[in-house]
Amino acid sequence: MATMPDETAVFGEPKYWQLRTSLLKAIDEDFNSGDILPNERDLAARFGVARATLRHALEQLELEGRLVRKRGAGTTVAGPRVDVSLGADGEGWPGVDLRDREVIDCATVPVTEEFADTLKGRPSALVHRLRRRQFSMRQVVGLECLYVSRAVVPSLSTRVPNFERASLMLRQLRGHRLEGRHRAVELAVAEAEEARYLERPPGTAVLVVTTTYTALGRTAAVTVATYRADTCRLAFAEAGPTALRPAS
Amino acid sequence: MATMPDETAVFGEPKYWQLRTSLLKAIDEDFNSGDILPNERDLAARFGVARATLRHALEQLELEGRLVRKRGAGTTVAGPRVDVSLGADGEGWPGVDLRDREVIDCATVPVTEEFADTLKGRPSALVHRLRRRQFSMRQVVGLECLYVSRAVVPSLSTRVPNFERASLMLRQLRGHRLEGRHRAVELAVAEAEEARYLERPPGTAVLVVTTTYTALGRTAAVTVATYRADTCRLAFAEAGPTALRPAS
Repeated sequence: MATMPDETAVFGEPKYWQLRTSLLKAIDEDFNSGDILPNERDLAARFGVARATLRHALEQLELEGRLVRKRGAGTTVAGPRVDVSLGADGEGWPGVDLRDREVIDCATVPVTEEFADTLKGRPSALVHRLRRRQFSMRQVVGLECLYVSRAVVPSLSTRVPNFERASLMLRQLRGHRLEGRHRAVELAVAEAEEARYLERPPGTAVLVVTTTYTALGRTAAVTVATYRADTCRLAFAEAGPTALRPAS
Repeated sequence: MATMPDETAVFGEPKYWQLRTSLLKAIDEDFNSGDILPNERDLAARFGVARATLRHALEQLELEGRLVRKRGAGTTVAGPRVDVSLGADGEGWPGVDLRDREVIDCATVPVTEEFADTLKGRPSALVHRLRRRQFSMRQVVGLECLYVSRAVVPSLSTRVPNFERASLMLRQLRGHRLEGRHRAVELAVAEAEEARYLERPPGTAVLVVTTTYTALGRTAAVTVATYRADTCRLAFAEAGPTALRPAS
């Protein structure tokens, strides 16, 4: 079997990976965030590698959040990641009306197959959906989709603008005591529409945080928040004393 | 400026992405998990694309955890992701001695530059480090590094095997009341050594969970757990009633 370029046995280090490690060292030692790297031709010549290998290494460093590549603008060194706070008392709570959020839309829509079970609805059942974009330092960092069961908020007023409708829905949601939060974090890639809102190309790596909230034992709301994996770090602050359990 | 293959304007859909979406549909409709896909030459011909475009799409689906590619064994359809529980009462706690963990080593080592500040030590200061691999259904899912301050566990016995030394250290740690947990989740890629323990090639996408524990106001321990992003979903179960705060 012919050896493909850029690949070696499972435990070896592919060529692009060795290059990535050399580039990372150069970035750390010789560049500051915001600096522009030399162009691909010059970089490939400097490190004595093929353009394809160089691009593979640059893509890897982009995934790691160390480089930002923009067509026409070249490759720049990324700044540190943004901490997105998902603590229990502040951000990430469905009822909280926050600055740094931009309402995209707020409407009653058919529940997607993905959430039909969770929201205890048939696939054709309706739920309220609020979509917001989250910003940090004027940069878009995430897209937040909040699904609210009609058992909790029976209907939305349709005669007011999106922003006002969202505020009214959040106010109704705040009237409920939500319990039994369950949260999952996983890696995904942005589909075309999400990617557009995140101002990135489709296929960009994202961290998806799915949070389920219950009220009186039934699922009341689900939040699906999608954060850019290259620029965000999710921070869960959990204060208060917590004793260790003895090992079983 | 010449258009590169596989790329279009920021808001367009690159060719590899269209192919990825077609492949995903085919996988969902015509294949079950564990099934082997046709070889690259046949797939490229079937979809009428270049091999480079096909590989780009397959790499994307591997990152998404939908395909598993192994040299020599071809490309298979992945099973569902494994839920890794990081709840407060069970797994993920430094003092807990769990099944499904394999001790790699337990030793007193110089604190890395990365944790020098957190562990309040000078870069040359020593900390105890326990490294374990975590399994689920006999598959390795994560690598867990627990750093323990010598203010909490003064010394390790060196005359016993790694496994016993680890148990003794965890027992001492359980004697302390840990507080003020802070946890961060971010995307990274596995460096060569981590990759080896995770049985993946270097550069594999991983979710890194860093948790800081304090005792009496000082950092007592830090856990850095690295999970395979293609196969794991991190689950944070947070039980108990939680009232929504009024918006400020």
